[in-house]
Amino acid sequence: MNPATETRLRVRYAETDQMGVVYYANYLIWMEAGRVDLCKACGFNYRDIEREDGIFFAVAEATCRYRSPARFDDEVIVKTWVEDANARIVTFAYEMRLAEDDRVLATGTTRHIFVSSAMQRTRLPQKYHAMLGITQRL
Amino acid sequence: MNPATETRLRVRYAETDQMGVVYYANYLIWMEAGRVDLCKACGFNYRDIEREDGIFFAVAEATCRYRSPARFDDEVIVKTWVEDANARIVTFAYEMRLAEDDRVLATGTTRHIFVSSAMQRTRLPQKYHAMLGITQRL
Amino acid sequence: MNPATETRLRVRYAETDQMGVVYYANYLIWMEAGRVDLCKACGFNYRDIEREDGIFFAVAEATCRYRSPARFDDEVIVKTWVEDANARIVTFAYEMRLAEDDRVLATGTTRHIFVSSAMQRTRLPQKYHAMLGITQRL
Amino acid sequence: MNPATETRLRVRYAETDQMGVVYYANYLIWMEAGRVDLCKACGFNYRDIEREDGIFFAVAEATCRYRSPARFDDEVIVKTWVEDANARIVTFAYEMRLAEDDRVLATGTTRHIFVSSAMQRTRLPQKYHAMLGITQRL
Repeated sequence: MNPATETRLRVRYAETDQMGVVYYANYLIWMEAGRVDLCKACGFNYRDIEREDGIFFAVAEATCRYRSPARFDDEVIVKTWVEDANARIVTFAYEMRLAEDDRVLATGTTRHIFVSSAMQRTRLPQKYHAMLGITQRL
Repeated sequence: MNPATETRLRVRYAETDQMGVVYYANYLIWMEAGRVDLCKACGFNYRDIEREDGIFFAVAEATCRYRSPARFDDEVIVKTWVEDANARIVTFAYEMRLAEDDRVLATGTTRHIFVSSAMQRTRLPQKYHAMLGITQRL
Repeated sequence: MNPATETRLRVRYAETDQMGVVYYANYLIWMEAGRVDLCKACGFNYRDIEREDGIFFAVAEATCRYRSPARFDDEVIVKTWVEDANARIVTFAYEMRLAEDDRVLATGTTRHIFVSSAMQRTRLPQKYHAMLGITQRL
Repeated sequence: MNPATETRLRVRYAETDQMGVVYYANYLIWMEAGRVDLCKACGFNYRDIEREDGIFFAVAEATCRYRSPARFDDEVIVKTWVEDANARIVTFAYEMRLAEDDRVLATGTTRHIFVSSAMQRTRLPQKYHAMLGITQRL
């Protein structure tokens, strides 16, 4: 079983909009920070997969439900885990909470396909399977 | 029936990432450009609703399916329409295509609740109902 | 003499911050939109220089003076011109104005060095010299 | 004398561009993270100045010199200090270094004027003067 990771970040002024809260697209950037940390906890650097294996995790779908607004200078905890994975696709799930009172700010998912640098669909190399919790399907 | 609008934009270098394609969060920013134009086509400026009525369209949910990557300097057409609306909630739908060959880049939806400047849920004022295609429910 | 170009853009909600005005880093993104258009007016696509010649315009310095704030949904005109250029360096200058009343929002400059894809300094190929107004120094 | 602060941050994938390095406007966002931390080290939260005193630090000028590119997943240290301050204007200076080998990535400055929520120029309240190292000019 893969671990869930917790990434802490501080809301930047740049991330707010004139509504006085965090602009909705920024939560997807926080999810990215979360899954980079999750990869590290799983035993690999996403940076190295791109560099050394020429494998990219292209986003196929993203969803986000916004529960409560985050504000400038808030500390946010992004909890990330692998929801589902096989040699072709991985789905990450996220829960973003306010550090101060554990209030849920947003939840979301991102589904990724593995592609080559030429953007062709490919399989995740075997050596990463166990790290993402991919088990042999008989 | 509300119209669908088409918003044209040019992919900025800032919007690309090291994969050489547009970073996935930016599609949500393009959706925003689309719905601002749709509001204008429906007969009101989103800017004025905030200023004059103190009503904000807070995002409750966003989804995006990524079909084909957009690249720097591509011209993109964002087609936007109201998928569903009532006095409490409006859902916009989007289709983003490449102007050059009409290839679909992504599709998505955003669901918004109407809130006051204090972030309390509220109803959309009556005068905007017809513009968003909201009909009286008996 | 190289022309100055004018690029029109509409301020996005994403570009505002909780001060209710455009966040200061976004003006540098608008400058990028301006210089991409200027390159086209000069006779080449920046995209093609990267792809075909493997030449990148790496930013060495950027400055921006902010005169008057831009706001959501404002139409902005970015005027761009080559301030100085030689085979090693090009400096672009920018003036950003509000379309509505010609008020100057900001002025700025960016200085770029030409680099290879390996980030090594290089010379701009001869064929682009005239386009950027680079004349032979005897 | 005011302290210099050091803010550590991790380069996000979203911050890279297709050149494979951090897009130049993002350094201004990092400067913001640096000055928010500097304010805290000086004894106040920037968030509270806005909320409680209705004072905003509007950016009047920003400069950045780019020395060496930052890349995805790099750890960056933003060193920030007050270069000059009086009751009307404060100038912050920044040095951004790579944590791994202390290489300087960029240096910069931002000059701010104090404004009210209505964007009118104002004076920084007396209680903050000592915190920013503003001394009485006789």
